[in-house]
Amino acid sequence: MNQTFVTEIARKSEDLSRWYTDVILKAELADYWLIHGFQVIRPYGYALWENVQSRLDARFKATGHRNAYFPLLLPESLLAKEAEHVAGFAPEVAWVTAAGSEELSERLAIRPTSEAIFGTMYSKWIQSWRDLPMLLNQWCSVVRWEKATRFFLRTTEFLWQEGHTAHRTAEDAQAETMRMLDVYQDFVEKDMAIPVIAGQKSEAEKFAGAEATYTIEALMPDGQALQSATSHFLGQNFARAFDITFQDQDGLRKHVWTTSWGLSTRTLGAVILTHGDDSGLILPPKIAPIQAIIIPIPGKSADDQAIRDAVEQARQSLAERFRVEVDLSEKTPGWKYSEWELRGVPLRIEIGPRDVRANQAVLVRRDTREKQPVPLPGLATAVGETLDRVQDNLFARARAFLESRISRADTLADFQRALQEQPGFILAHWCGSPECEATIKAQTGATIRCIPFREPEETGTCIVDGRPSRKRALFARAY
Amino acid sequence: MNQTFVTEIARKSEDLSRWYTDVILKAELADYWLIHGFQVIRPYGYALWENVQSRLDARFKATGHRNAYFPLLLPESLLAKEAEHVAGFAPEVAWVTAAGSEELSERLAIRPTSEAIFGTMYSKWIQSWRDLPMLLNQWCSVVRWEKATRFFLRTTEFLWQEGHTAHRTAEDAQAETMRMLDVYQDFVEKDMAIPVIAGQKSEAEKFAGAEATYTIEALMPDGQALQSATSHFLGQNFARAFDITFQDQDGLRKHVWTTSWGLSTRTLGAVILTHGDDSGLILPPKIAPIQAIIIPIPGKSADDQAIRDAVEQARQSLAERFRVEVDLSEKTPGWKYSEWELRGVPLRIEIGPRDVRANQAVLVRRDTREKQPVPLPGLATAVGETLDRVQDNLFARARAFLESRISRADTLADFQRALQEQPGFILAHWCGSPECEATIKAQTGATIRCIPFREPEETGTCIVDGRPSRKRALFARAY
Repeated sequence: MNQTFVTEIARKSEDLSRWYTDVILKAELADYWLIHGFQVIRPYGYALWENVQSRLDARFKATGHRNAYFPLLLPESLLAKEAEHVAGFAPEVAWVTAAGSEELSERLAIRPTSEAIFGTMYSKWIQSWRDLPMLLNQWCSVVRWEKATRFFLRTTEFLWQEGHTAHRTAEDAQAETMRMLDVYQDFVEKDMAIPVIAGQKSEAEKFAGAEATYTIEALMPDGQALQSATSHFLGQNFARAFDITFQDQDGLRKHVWTTSWGLSTRTLGAVILTHGDDSGLILPPKIAPIQAIIIPIPGKSADDQAIRDAVEQARQSLAERFRVEVDLSEKTPGWKYSEWELRGVPLRIEIGPRDVRANQAVLVRRDTREKQPVPLPGLATAVGETLDRVQDNLFARARAFLESRISRADTLADFQRALQEQPGFILAHWCGSPECEATIKAQTGATIRCIPFREPEETGTCIVDGRPSRKRALFARAY
Repeated sequence: MNQTFVTEIARKSEDLSRWYTDVILKAELADYWLIHGFQVIRPYGYALWENVQSRLDARFKATGHRNAYFPLLLPESLLAKEAEHVAGFAPEVAWVTAAGSEELSERLAIRPTSEAIFGTMYSKWIQSWRDLPMLLNQWCSVVRWEKATRFFLRTTEFLWQEGHTAHRTAEDAQAETMRMLDVYQDFVEKDMAIPVIAGQKSEAEKFAGAEATYTIEALMPDGQALQSATSHFLGQNFARAFDITFQDQDGLRKHVWTTSWGLSTRTLGAVILTHGDDSGLILPPKIAPIQAIIIPIPGKSADDQAIRDAVEQARQSLAERFRVEVDLSEKTPGWKYSEWELRGVPLRIEIGPRDVRANQAVLVRRDTREKQPVPLPGLATAVGETLDRVQDNLFARARAFLESRISRADTLADFQRALQEQPGFILAHWCGSPECEATIKAQTGATIRCIPFREPEETGTCIVDGRPSRKRALFARAY
C-alpha cells in the first residue's frame, strides 16, 4: 500500500519537473486556476507561507520597519513617470479599462510592484529630515502577466512582501539595501535551510529603475539557479521621478534616496525543490505547518485505550512548543507514514503497544528516516533537539550540494563543458560589457546570477573577449 | 499649545463627518489615493487591522477553519454562473481587458467577493462525504466600484476576510452560518467594544445569491446604523451553479450546502466613530496598536537621569505583556498629551520628578481622563487592570447609547417623528412585503437593518398597509 501511494508521484531523481508538479498537487500545496498562470494556494501551502510571513515579518520589525497597505491599482501615467521602470514592467501589466458598465478615462494597472505608488505618497508625507528614514513594508499580491508559468516559481499573480524606504543620504540608503539583503540571507539560510550566494546583479539583470540590485541565489537539484530575494538601491531615480524632497538640517531642499526589496511565494518553490526526495516533500522544521505527526500503531484491542492515552499525553506535552498533530484516521499505519512523508512533516512519532509498555515513543526523522526510541517523560526535549538536527542537516546537505556544483572556467569552451558535465554555478571572468554577457547567454543559456561578495579580487581575462577582469562573476542557467 | 493642536480637528459633537476625516488624516490612519474611492492604509491604521486580523483569525482557527489564498481574477463567464449573484455584483466590477500589449479574449473581473472562485475549486476538491465539512477562509483585498466613498466605511478597494464553507446537510450549513455570526458578535463586542444587534436581513437586503443573510448592526453617534459583518446561508444555490456534489454515505450523489461570511476594514470606521471624542480617537485596548504610552515629565536637569531610568524600568516591566511605547521626543509634555490623545492610545503613563521620588507613575485613562498614581513595582498589574476597565467602559457607554436610541413606532407618522427627534434604531411592525419596505425607505430614508433575534414575537400590524405582523423589524438610516 505504501508502494502504491508513493508511485503516484514521479521520482525526483528521474524527472524533477514532473516530481515537482506531482508533489505540489498530491500534498495539496496548490492547484491550477482557470486562468493561465494563476494558482490557488491551498491550506497546507498557505500555512507554509504564513510561517514564512511571521518569521520574516519579525525580522522586519526588529530592524525598525512598519507594515502598511497601499492600493492595488495605479494610473498608467503614474507608472510611466520613471522611464526605465515602465519599460521594464509595462509588457507584463494587467490593465483595468472598465468599471461596472463604464469605460475608464485612463487605464489602471494592477500593481506589478509598488515603487510608483509608495513614491507618490512619500512625496506627500516626507517634508523634513525629521521624517527620515521612512521604513515601510507591505504584504500583498502583485500581478505580472507571464507566458511560461509554474506553481510558485513563476505565477501571474503571486504573494510577496515589498519594502520601500526613503533616506537622507546615499550612504543610509545603501546601508539599508545591504541590511535587508542580510535579513533575507539570514532568513532563507536559517529558516528555509537553503544556502545562497549573495552578490550584485549586472546592469542587464538589475531591477528596472534601480541604480544597483543585490540578490541571493540558490541552486536547485537540476543545477539551475533560483533568485530567492532581491534588494535594490534606487539612488535618487524615483525621488526625482516622484518629486520626493525634504528640507535637510542645513535648510536646503534635497531629494531623498530610496530602496526597495522583496521576497515572494517563489521561495516556496525553492523549499520544495531543494529538500524533497522520491517520497515527497521534506519541510524545514522552522517553517513546516506541522512539525511532528503522532501516529498510533494499533495492537491487540486490549491495548487500544492505553495507546490512545499515551498518544494524547504525548500530544499535550508537545502542543505548547510545537506544531503537532495526531492522525487518528482509520488508515493503516503504513498508509499514514506515506501520506505524512509525502507532505514533508519533518518528524513522525510512533506509539504502539510495545512503546506503551516501555513508556516510550519512537521518533522517525523525515530526512534520514533514522529511528530513535525516546522515554515519554523527556519527549518534548527530544523532539526539540531532533527538529534542530533535521533543520541543520537539511541546510548542511543543501550546502554540500551547492558547493559541489561550483565550477571555475577560464575559457568559453571550459564554460560550456562544465555546464554540460555538471550543471550548476560557474565562476568565470567577465570584462563587464553587456555584449560579452549576451554572448555567453546566447551560446550557453547561462546568465550572470551575480558578482558574488564572497569571491576575492583576482586578475583575469574575460572568457569572451579577453579583456581584463578583476573578479569572477557567478553564472548559471536559471529558473 | 494643547489647545492649538486639538483645534485642528473639527469637534465630534458639531460636525461628525468632518471630525471623522480630520481625525483619520491627523492620526495618520489612512490617506487619499489618486484614484477616486481608494485609500492608503498608513502604518498606524494598518497596525489596528493587524490586531483585528490576529484576534479574529484565532477565533476562526478555534472553530476549525483554515486559511488559503484564492486568485484575484475570475473570468466573466464564471461570475455569471449564479444569476442573482452576477446581477448584484456586475455593476461594481473592475474589468481587466488587456495584459501587456494584448487584448484578452474574455474580460476578467477583479474579485468583488469569491463565492464563484471557491465554488469552482470546491467542485473539484469535494468528492465524498468524508471531504465535508470544508471550512476555509481567506484574508485578501476585494474591489467594488463605488460612487460615494469614505475612508474605511466605503472604499473601492477594501481589505477583508471571507469564509467559504461546504457542508453535507442544510442543518450543518445553517449551524455554521449562525456560529460565525456569533464569532463576529463576540469579536466586535468584546474586542472592538461595539455593541451590536444581531438578526436576519430582509429579502431586499440580503446578499446576492444567498438564501438568507444574517447581520450584526451597530449604531453610530449620528444615529445611523452600520452593518458590521454578515454571514450567509447560501443553500444549494452555488452548489448547483458550480456543480459541487459529493457521494453521501448512502451512496447517492448530492449537492453540498454552502455558507459565506465576511468582516472588513469597514469595521475600523465603526471603531473610530463609536469611541472617539473631541480630542480625537479612543481605541479599545484589545486592538489598539499602542496600549500605553509612557511620557517623561522633565524637571530640573539634576532629575533627568533618574527620570530616564524610571521610564526605562517602567517600559521593561510592561513590554512583555503590553504594546507599550515611550515618547522621548523633544516636544513639551502638553504637546505629547494632545498627540497621543488624538491617536487614541487608551492609557498614558506619566513619570516626572515627584513620581521618581515617590517611586510611582501616574496613569491617565484616555476615556475618562481619570488620573491614578501607581507604585512602580505594581505597574504591570495596574496597567492590566486599567486597560480592562477602559475596554469595559467603552463598551458600556456605547451600549448605553445604543439602547437609548431604540424607539418603537406603531404608525408611519410615529416612525417619521421618532427618526427626526432622536435618530437611531426604530422597531416597527412590518408585514414582510417588499412594497411596504420600499415605501418606508422612500418616505423616511430608513431601511430594514434586520429582523432582530432578541425581539420577542408579538401580534401587530404593518405600519404601512396594516396587514398582520408577528415580530418587529429593526429600521434605521444606514452608512
